[in-house]
Amino acid sequence: MGRWEPNAQLRLMQAALELFDERGFDQTTAGDIAERAGVTERTFFRHFPDKREVLFDSSRTMERTAHEATLAAPAELAPLDAALVGVTAGAAMLEDRREYAARRARIIAGHPSLRERELLKLAALAATIAQALAERGVAEPVTTLAAESAVTAFRVGFERWTAAGPAGRLADRIAEAAAALRELAG
Amino acid sequence: MGRWEPNAQLRLMQAALELFDERGFDQTTAGDIAERAGVTERTFFRHFPDKREVLFDSSRTMERTAHEATLAAPAELAPLDAALVGVTAGAAMLEDRREYAARRARIIAGHPSLRERELLKLAALAATIAQALAERGVAEPVTTLAAESAVTAFRVGFERWTAAGPAGRLADRIAEAAAALRELAG
Repeated sequence: MGRWEPNAQLRLMQAALELFDERGFDQTTAGDIAERAGVTERTFFRHFPDKREVLFDSSRTMERTAHEATLAAPAELAPLDAALVGVTAGAAMLEDRREYAARRARIIAGHPSLRERELLKLAALAATIAQALAERGVAEPVTTLAAESAVTAFRVGFERWTAAGPAGRLADRIAEAAAALRELAG
Repeated sequence: MGRWEPNAQLRLMQAALELFDERGFDQTTAGDIAERAGVTERTFFRHFPDKREVLFDSSRTMERTAHEATLAAPAELAPLDAALVGVTAGAAMLEDRREYAARRARIIAGHPSLRERELLKLAALAATIAQALAERGVAEPVTTLAAESAVTAFRVGFERWTAAGPAGRLADRIAEAAAALRELAG
Protein backbone atom coordinates (compact mmCIF):
# COMPACT_ATOMS: atom_id res chain seq x y z
CA MET A 1 0.00 0.00 0.00
CA GLY A 2 3.01 2.24 0.64
CA ARG A 3 3.55 3.20 -2.98
CA TRP A 4 0.06 4.74 -3.17
CA GLU A 5 0.42 6.80 -0.01
CA PRO A 6 1.49 10.09 -1.66
CA ASN A 7 -1.95 10.38 -3.26
CA ALA A 8 -3.90 8.81 -0.42
CA GLN A 9 -5.48 12.06 0.69
CA LEU A 10 -6.77 12.99 -2.76
CA ARG A 11 -7.99 9.46 -3.41
CA LEU A 12 -9.81 9.43 -0.07
CA MET A 13 -11.52 12.73 -0.95
CA GLN A 14 -12.60 11.35 -4.33
CA ALA A 15 -13.78 8.04 -2.84
CA ALA A 16 -15.76 9.84 -0.12
CA LEU A 17 -17.54 11.97 -2.69
CA GLU A 18 -18.46 8.95 -4.79
CA LEU A 19 -19.81 7.04 -1.81
CA PHE A 20 -21.72 10.00 -0.34
CA ASP A 21 -23.33 10.37 -3.78
CA GLU A 22 -24.11 6.68 -4.24
CA ARG A 23 -25.21 5.68 -0.73
CA GLY A 24 -25.76 8.95 1.09
CA PHE A 25 -23.62 10.53 3.79
CA ASP A 26 -25.23 8.69 6.71
CA GLN A 27 -24.86 5.29 5.07
CA THR A 28 -21.13 5.69 4.42
CA THR A 29 -18.44 4.84 7.00
CA ALA A 30 -14.78 5.85 7.16
CA GLY A 31 -14.00 2.16 6.54
CA ASP A 32 -16.06 2.21 3.31
CA ILE A 33 -14.15 5.27 2.11
CA ALA A 34 -10.77 3.72 2.91
CA GLU A 35 -11.74 0.52 1.10
CA ARG A 36 -12.89 2.40 -2.03
CA ALA A 37 -9.67 4.43 -2.00
CA GLY A 38 -7.60 1.27 -1.62
CA VAL A 39 -6.03 2.21 1.71
CA THR A 40 -6.44 0.98 5.27
CA GLU A 41 -8.84 2.54 7.75
CA ARG A 42 -5.78 3.55 9.76
CA THR A 43 -4.53 5.55 6.78
CA PHE A 44 -7.93 7.26 6.60
CA PHE A 45 -7.62 8.38 10.21
CA ARG A 46 -4.07 9.58 9.64
CA HIS A 47 -5.50 12.05 7.13
CA PHE A 48 -8.92 12.94 8.57
CA PRO A 49 -10.46 12.89 12.07
CA ASP A 50 -13.84 11.71 10.71
CA LYS A 51 -15.81 11.28 7.48
CA ARG A 52 -17.33 14.77 7.71
CA GLU A 53 -13.91 16.40 7.72
CA VAL A 54 -13.08 14.88 4.32
CA LEU A 55 -15.43 17.48 2.82
CA PHE A 56 -13.97 20.42 4.75
CA ASP A 57 -10.27 19.72 4.63
CA SER A 58 -9.53 22.49 2.09
CA SER A 59 -11.36 25.17 4.08
CA ARG A 60 -8.37 26.08 6.24
CA THR A 61 -6.11 26.44 3.20
CA MET A 62 -8.69 28.70 1.62
CA GLU A 63 -8.95 30.80 4.78
CA ARG A 64 -5.19 31.17 5.02
CA THR A 65 -4.85 32.13 1.36
CA ALA A 66 -7.71 34.65 1.62
CA HIS A 67 -6.18 36.20 4.73
CA GLU A 68 -2.75 36.60 3.14
CA ALA A 69 -4.11 37.98 -0.13
CA THR A 70 -6.30 40.52 1.68
CA LEU A 71 -3.29 41.68 3.66
CA ALA A 72 -1.08 41.86 0.56
CA ALA A 73 -3.60 43.74 -1.60
CA PRO A 74 -2.42 47.20 -2.77
CA ALA A 75 -2.66 49.69 0.09
CA GLU A 76 -4.82 52.11 -1.91
CA LEU A 77 -7.64 49.58 -2.38
CA ALA A 78 -10.91 50.29 -0.57
CA PRO A 79 -11.91 47.72 2.09
CA LEU A 80 -14.46 45.91 -0.11
CA ASP A 81 -11.96 45.68 -2.98
CA ALA A 82 -9.26 44.30 -0.69
CA ALA A 83 -11.73 41.75 0.71
CA LEU A 84 -12.65 40.72 -2.84
CA VAL A 85 -8.98 40.25 -3.70
CA GLY A 86 -8.76 37.96 -0.67
CA VAL A 87 -11.83 35.89 -1.41
CA THR A 88 -10.88 35.54 -5.08
CA ALA A 89 -7.39 34.35 -4.16
CA GLY A 90 -8.88 31.83 -1.76
CA ALA A 91 -11.25 30.62 -4.47
CA ALA A 92 -8.43 30.14 -7.00
CA MET A 93 -7.69 26.66 -5.70
CA LEU A 94 -11.15 25.61 -6.90
CA GLU A 95 -10.72 26.74 -10.54
CA ASP A 96 -9.47 23.37 -11.83
CA ARG A 97 -11.73 21.33 -9.55
CA ARG A 98 -15.13 22.49 -10.71
CA GLU A 99 -16.64 18.99 -11.00
CA TYR A 100 -15.46 18.05 -7.52
CA ALA A 101 -16.66 21.36 -6.05
CA ALA A 102 -20.10 21.02 -7.63
CA ARG A 103 -20.60 17.47 -6.37
CA ARG A 104 -19.40 18.45 -2.93
CA ALA A 105 -21.86 21.37 -2.86
CA ARG A 106 -24.75 19.07 -3.85
CA ILE A 107 -23.93 16.61 -1.07
CA ILE A 108 -23.68 19.39 1.51
CA ALA A 109 -26.97 20.95 0.40
CA GLY A 110 -28.76 17.67 1.06
CA HIS A 111 -27.67 17.25 4.65
CA PRO A 112 -28.50 19.77 7.45
CA SER A 113 -25.50 18.91 9.63
CA LEU A 114 -23.18 19.39 6.65
CA ARG A 115 -24.89 22.68 5.81
CA GLU A 116 -24.34 23.86 9.38
CA ARG A 117 -20.68 22.96 9.10
CA GLU A 118 -20.31 24.71 5.74
CA LEU A 119 -21.91 27.87 7.13
CA LEU A 120 -19.50 27.79 10.05
CA LYS A 121 -16.58 27.51 7.60
CA LEU A 122 -17.88 30.44 5.56
CA ALA A 123 -18.29 32.45 8.76
CA ALA A 124 -14.66 31.62 9.59
CA LEU A 125 -13.62 32.75 6.11
CA ALA A 126 -15.40 36.09 6.63
CA ALA A 127 -13.84 36.44 10.09
CA THR A 128 -10.33 35.86 8.77
CA ILE A 129 -10.82 38.43 5.99
CA ALA A 130 -12.24 40.92 8.54
CA GLN A 131 -9.15 40.27 10.66
CA ALA A 132 -6.87 41.02 7.69
CA LEU A 133 -8.78 44.25 7.00
CA ALA A 134 -8.33 45.24 10.65
CA GLU A 135 -4.58 44.63 10.22
CA ARG A 136 -4.76 47.02 7.23
CA GLY A 137 -6.11 49.66 9.62
CA VAL A 138 -9.80 49.40 8.71
CA ALA A 139 -12.21 49.87 11.62
CA GLU A 140 -15.50 48.19 12.56
CA PRO A 141 -18.20 47.99 11.32
CA VAL A 142 -16.57 48.37 7.88
CA THR A 143 -14.30 45.33 8.42
CA THR A 144 -17.23 43.00 9.06
CA LEU A 145 -19.49 44.54 6.40
CA ALA A 146 -16.79 44.36 3.71
CA ALA A 147 -15.73 40.81 4.63
CA GLU A 148 -19.33 39.54 4.76
CA SER A 149 -20.13 41.21 1.43
CA ALA A 150 -17.08 39.63 -0.21
CA VAL A 151 -18.10 36.19 1.09
CA THR A 152 -21.65 36.77 -0.18
CA ALA A 153 -20.19 37.58 -3.62
CA PHE A 154 -18.15 34.37 -3.40
CA ARG A 155 -21.21 32.28 -2.49
CA VAL A 156 -23.39 33.71 -5.23
CA GLY A 157 -20.55 33.51 -7.76
CA PHE A 158 -19.79 29.94 -6.75
CA GLU A 159 -23.41 28.90 -7.21
CA ARG A 160 -23.52 30.38 -10.72
CA TRP A 161 -20.16 28.86 -11.60
CA THR A 162 -21.17 25.32 -10.63
CA ALA A 163 -24.58 25.69 -12.30
CA ALA A 164 -23.12 26.90 -15.61
CA GLY A 165 -21.12 25.07 -18.29
CA PRO A 166 -17.56 24.00 -17.49
CA ALA A 167 -15.94 26.69 -19.61
CA GLY A 168 -16.32 29.60 -17.19
CA ARG A 169 -13.98 30.83 -14.48
CA LEU A 170 -15.03 31.15 -10.84
CA ALA A 171 -13.09 34.42 -10.53
CA ASP A 172 -15.29 35.96 -13.25
CA ARG A 173 -18.49 34.79 -11.57
CA ILE A 174 -17.33 36.32 -8.25
CA ALA A 175 -16.52 39.61 -10.00
CA GLU A 176 -19.99 39.64 -11.60
CA ALA A 177 -21.67 38.98 -8.25
CA ALA A 178 -19.61 41.77 -6.67
CA ALA A 179 -20.63 44.16 -9.47
CA ALA A 180 -24.31 43.25 -8.95
CA LEU A 181 -23.89 43.81 -5.21
CA ARG A 182 -22.44 47.27 -5.80
CA GLU A 183 -25.21 48.17 -8.17
CA LEU A 184 -27.90 47.08 -5.77
CA ALA A 185 -26.39 48.97 -2.85
CA GLY A 186 -25.50 52.08 -4.81
CA MET B 1 -48.86 23.88 38.56
CA GLY B 2 -51.78 24.58 36.29
CA ARG B 3 -52.12 28.22 37.25
CA TRP B 4 -48.58 28.94 36.04
CA GLU B 5 -48.98 27.24 32.68
CA PRO B 6 -49.83 30.36 30.62
CA ASN B 7 -46.32 31.70 31.22
CA ALA B 8 -44.54 28.35 31.20
CA GLN B 9 -42.85 28.93 27.86
CA LEU B 10 -41.38 32.31 28.79
CA ARG B 11 -40.33 31.05 32.21
CA LEU B 12 -38.62 28.05 30.61
CA MET B 13 -36.73 30.38 28.24
CA GLN B 14 -35.60 32.55 31.13
CA ALA B 15 -34.62 29.55 33.27
CA ALA B 16 -32.65 27.99 30.41
CA LEU B 17 -30.70 31.18 29.88
CA GLU B 18 -29.84 31.44 33.57
CA LEU B 19 -28.67 27.85 33.77
CA PHE B 20 -26.68 27.95 30.52
CA ASP B 21 -24.95 31.04 31.93
CA GLU B 22 -24.33 29.55 35.39
CA ARG B 23 -23.38 25.96 34.52
CA GLY B 24 -22.74 25.97 30.79
CA PHE B 25 -24.92 24.53 28.03
CA ASP B 26 -23.48 21.01 28.20
CA GLN B 27 -23.94 20.75 31.96
CA THR B 28 -27.64 21.71 31.86
CA THR B 29 -30.45 19.20 31.25
CA ALA B 30 -34.05 19.74 30.21
CA GLY B 31 -34.98 18.49 33.69
CA ASP B 32 -32.82 21.19 35.30
CA ILE B 33 -34.54 23.86 33.22
CA ALA B 34 -38.01 22.58 34.10
CA GLU B 35 -37.13 22.51 37.79
CA ARG B 36 -35.78 26.09 37.75
CA ALA B 37 -38.91 27.24 35.91
CA GLY B 38 -41.14 25.44 38.42
CA VAL B 39 -42.79 23.11 35.88
CA THR B 40 -42.56 19.40 35.21
CA GLU B 41 -40.17 17.90 32.66
CA ARG B 42 -43.27 16.83 30.72
CA THR B 43 -44.29 20.47 30.44
CA PHE B 44 -40.83 21.29 29.14
CA PHE B 45 -41.21 18.75 26.34
CA ARG B 46 -44.70 20.03 25.52
CA HIS B 47 -43.05 23.36 24.65
CA PHE B 48 -39.65 22.35 23.24
CA PRO B 49 -38.23 19.23 21.57
CA ASP B 50 -34.86 19.64 23.35
CA LYS B 51 -32.79 22.12 25.37
CA ARG B 52 -31.12 23.58 22.26
CA GLU B 53 -34.47 24.56 20.75
CA VAL B 54 -35.26 26.79 23.76
CA LEU B 55 -32.74 29.24 22.32
CA PHE B 56 -34.13 29.12 18.76
CA ASP B 57 -37.85 29.07 19.33
CA SER B 58 -38.37 32.66 18.17
CA SER B 59 -36.48 32.17 14.91
CA ARG B 60 -39.48 30.92 12.95
CA THR B 61 -41.63 33.84 14.11
CA MET B 62 -38.88 36.20 13.02
CA GLU B 63 -38.64 34.50 9.61
CA ARG B 64 -42.39 34.66 9.07
CA THR B 65 -42.56 38.33 10.07
CA ALA B 66 -39.61 39.22 7.83
CA HIS B 67 -41.15 37.37 4.90
CA GLU B 68 -44.51 39.11 5.26
CA ALA B 69 -43.00 42.57 5.73
CA THR B 70 -40.74 42.16 2.69
CA LEU B 71 -43.75 41.17 0.62
CA ALA B 72 -45.87 44.03 1.97
CA ALA B 73 -43.19 46.72 1.47
CA PRO B 74 -44.17 49.53 -0.95
CA ALA B 75 -43.91 48.29 -4.53
CA GLU B 76 -41.59 51.12 -5.57
CA LEU B 77 -38.87 50.13 -3.08
CA ALA B 78 -35.63 48.76 -4.51
CA PRO B 79 -34.81 45.13 -3.60
CA LEU B 80 -32.30 46.01 -0.87
CA ASP B 81 -34.72 48.49 0.70
CA ALA B 82 -37.54 45.95 0.69
CA ALA B 83 -35.23 43.35 2.24
CA LEU B 84 -34.25 45.87 4.94
CA VAL B 85 -37.93 46.55 5.68
CA GLY B 86 -38.32 42.80 6.13
CA VAL B 87 -35.35 42.25 8.38
CA THR B 88 -36.20 45.31 10.49
CA ALA B 89 -39.77 44.10 10.97
CA GLY B 90 -38.46 40.68 11.99
CA ALA B 91 -36.09 42.30 14.45
CA ALA B 92 -38.85 44.41 16.05
CA MET B 93 -39.78 41.56 18.40
CA LEU B 94 -36.35 41.93 20.01
CA GLU B 95 -36.64 45.65 20.85
CA ASP B 96 -38.00 45.16 24.37
CA ARG B 97 -35.88 42.05 25.04
CA ARG B 98 -32.40 43.46 24.72
CA GLU B 99 -31.04 41.92 27.92
CA TYR B 100 -32.36 38.48 26.97
CA ALA B 101 -31.06 38.80 23.40
CA ALA B 102 -27.59 39.84 24.57
CA ARG B 103 -27.28 36.95 27.03
CA ARG B 104 -28.55 34.51 24.42
CA ALA B 105 -25.96 35.79 21.91
CA ARG B 106 -23.15 35.36 24.47
CA ILE B 107 -24.17 31.77 25.20
CA ILE B 108 -24.36 30.93 21.50
CA ALA B 109 -20.97 32.51 20.78
CA GLY B 110 -19.35 30.23 23.34
CA HIS B 111 -20.58 26.94 21.88
CA PRO B 112 -19.71 25.74 18.33
CA SER B 113 -22.82 23.58 17.89
CA LEU B 114 -25.03 26.51 18.92
CA ARG B 115 -23.12 28.80 16.53
CA GLU B 116 -23.73 26.33 13.69
CA ARG B 117 -27.41 26.29 14.52
CA GLU B 118 -27.60 30.09 14.69
CA LEU B 119 -25.89 30.39 11.30
CA LEU B 120 -28.40 27.93 9.84
CA LYS B 121 -31.25 30.05 11.22
CA LEU B 122 -29.75 33.23 9.76
CA ALA B 123 -29.36 31.44 6.41
CA ALA B 124 -33.03 30.48 6.64
CA LEU B 125 -33.91 34.11 7.38
CA ALA B 126 -32.00 35.23 4.27
CA ALA B 127 -33.64 32.50 2.20
CA THR B 128 -37.15 33.51 3.26
CA ILE B 129 -36.45 37.17 2.45
CA ALA B 130 -34.98 36.14 -0.93
CA GLN B 131 -38.16 34.13 -1.53
CA ALA B 132 -40.31 37.18 -0.74
CA LEU B 133 -38.24 39.29 -3.14
CA ALA B 134 -38.75 36.65 -5.85
CA GLU B 135 -42.49 36.91 -5.20
CA ARG B 136 -42.14 40.67 -5.76
CA GLY B 137 -40.73 39.88 -9.20
CA VAL B 138 -37.02 40.35 -8.42
CA ALA B 139 -34.68 37.94 -10.23
CA GLU B 140 -31.49 36.15 -9.17
CA PRO B 141 -28.78 36.98 -8.29
CA VAL B 142 -30.28 40.23 -6.94
CA THR B 143 -32.71 38.35 -4.65
CA THR B 144 -29.91 36.50 -2.86
CA LEU B 145 -27.52 39.45 -2.82
CA ALA B 146 -30.15 41.83 -1.38
CA ALA B 147 -31.39 39.31 1.19
CA GLU B 148 -27.86 38.40 2.34
CA SER B 149 -26.89 42.07 2.56
CA ALA B 150 -29.96 42.84 4.68
CA VAL B 151 -29.14 39.97 7.03
CA THR B 152 -25.54 41.19 7.25
CA ALA B 153 -26.87 44.63 8.24
CA PHE B 154 -29.07 42.93 10.84
CA ARG B 155 -26.13 40.96 12.28
CA VAL B 156 -23.81 43.95 12.46
CA GLY B 157 -26.59 46.17 13.84
CA PHE B 158 -27.53 43.54 16.40
CA GLU B 159 -23.96 43.27 17.64
CA ARG B 160 -23.68 47.03 18.10
CA TRP B 161 -27.08 47.18 19.77
CA THR B 162 -26.25 44.54 22.39
CA ALA B 163 -22.78 46.02 22.97
CA ALA B 164 -24.10 49.55 23.53
CA GLY B 165 -26.08 51.05 26.41
CA PRO B 166 -29.69 49.98 26.88
CA ALA B 167 -31.16 53.23 25.56
CA GLY B 168 -30.72 52.56 21.83
CA ARG B 169 -33.09 50.96 19.35
CA LEU B 170 -32.12 47.92 17.29
CA ALA B 171 -33.89 49.37 14.24
CA ASP B 172 -31.56 52.39 14.33
CA ARG B 173 -28.47 50.20 14.59
CA ILE B 174 -29.65 48.15 11.58
CA ALA B 175 -30.25 51.34 9.59
CA GLU B 176 -26.75 52.57 10.45
CA ALA B 177 -25.19 49.27 9.38
CA ALA B 178 -27.16 49.40 6.13
CA ALA B 179 -25.95 52.97 5.50
CA ALA B 180 -22.34 51.90 6.12
CA LEU B 181 -22.84 48.96 3.75
CA ARG B 182 -24.10 51.27 1.00
CA GLU B 183 -21.23 53.64 1.51
CA LEU B 184 -18.65 50.88 1.29
CA ALA B 185 -20.15 49.39 -1.84
CA GLY B 186 -20.83 52.71 -3.53
